[in-house]
Amino acid sequence: MSTEPPLSPRSLSPTPRSTLHRLRERGRTDAADLDAVLDAGLICHLGVVVDGAPLVLPTGYGRIGETLYLHGSSANRSLLAAAGHEVCATVTLLDGLVCARSIFNHSMNYRSAVIIGPARLVTGEPERLGALRAVTEQLAPGQWEYARQPTRKELAGTAVLALPLAEASVKVRSGPPHDEPADCESGAWAGVIPAALTFGPPQPDPALSPAIPVPGHIAALARRAYKVEG
Amino acid sequence: MSTEPPLSPRSLSPTPRSTLHRLRERGRTDAADLDAVLDAGLICHLGVVVDGAPLVLPTGYGRIGETLYLHGSSANRSLLAAAGHEVCATVTLLDGLVCARSIFNHSMNYRSAVIIGPARLVTGEPERLGALRAVTEQLAPGQWEYARQPTRKELAGTAVLALPLAEASVKVRSGPPHDEPADCESGAWAGVIPAALTFGPPQPDPALSPAIPVPGHIAALARRAYKVEG
Repeated sequence: MSTEPPLSPRSLSPTPRSTLHRLRERGRTDAADLDAVLDAGLICHLGVVVDGAPLVLPTGYGRIGETLYLHGSSANRSLLAAAGHEVCATVTLLDGLVCARSIFNHSMNYRSAVIIGPARLVTGEPERLGALRAVTEQLAPGQWEYARQPTRKELAGTAVLALPLAEASVKVRSGPPHDEPADCESGAWAGVIPAALTFGPPQPDPALSPAIPVPGHIAALARRAYKVEG
Repeated sequence: MSTEPPLSPRSLSPTPRSTLHRLRERGRTDAADLDAVLDAGLICHLGVVVDGAPLVLPTGYGRIGETLYLHGSSANRSLLAAAGHEVCATVTLLDGLVCARSIFNHSMNYRSAVIIGPARLVTGEPERLGALRAVTEQLAPGQWEYARQPTRKELAGTAVLALPLAEASVKVRSGPPHDEPADCESGAWAGVIPAALTFGPPQPDPALSPAIPVPGHIAALARRAYKVEG
């Protein structure tokens, strides 16, 4: 993690439920840390309560300032059920497998952000369009300008939720395993196997004319620096 | 996806809440499909309800037959709060970014499993040890035999939850974008940018003697075939 001062003066406002009770040394409290995790991710896991039970679904997202936007079909019951209620959106980036000398000290290196708050159904067209742009650009930067814009009918079929980035916690684990001193004499190997989401060469739609080249922004996407550390 | 018959005669038992309401063509109903997603993943996102609000946290897991095991510190309040209550564990594998000719038809290729059910606090020592073995081997196959086994004190500090794989849904999206016929004439590029979790060369603990070589099972881990398709 950077030791530079946070870029944003905004600080997270932990409530009892967003306060880390364990492993506080892994906690981060700057909004800049939250933004960094969110901006580096591609999917979040959205938790909603349905008939008293939790339901966790993966979905894309986008961030504009201090708001996280989620979208889905306007026929998506879980999404609509979430509107007006508290939800939890969690983004996790796996950075490595931490292999210790003891089973107990095995761990993972990761960055995670957990946001809890009331989901608001976005109804104003300008905000909806901005949110869809953010969600699209989070997935594939450059595509909002490149691809065909949504029609009125497509917009009507799309629900957009907004979640304030006010109540959140960020956790980061990095570095080697923490073993007991006695175990360090064991002669066993210990260390980290770095991990990262990696992209491959773009695969054109089989229906695409071979005369259409891969545009620059798509080629750049496939080279995106989700680099394996080290 | 394989078109071979499922290896397991067990079939998922969808209830109204585990039945897919949308995009049913992406649904899978064989337990073999569920097992395949779970066996290929490294982390799940566990949803619990705390004071009526959802909380979603990333955590490791392991599978033994028709049971998913989760573990954590016995000081972990969310984990303990989940015991005896319904939880949701979701495993998502991102396989690609689907760039369509229209914004609306952008998507992701993925495999996901959503399991809902009552979490049981595991108390019997043989089942606890088996569960910890499964969780460890899911993360790093070979480490259970290689690393130091848990002590009595370490075991006392570890809580284990079991979740039956009875109520679950599996969704898979693969292949190229689905565009409107009119958009296919646009001349815009469309296709998939494949994605996969990838591992890098093992990084030894800086405290490790350089005389200790990387064991074969660790080297194999770093070569693990989370291959980018295509």
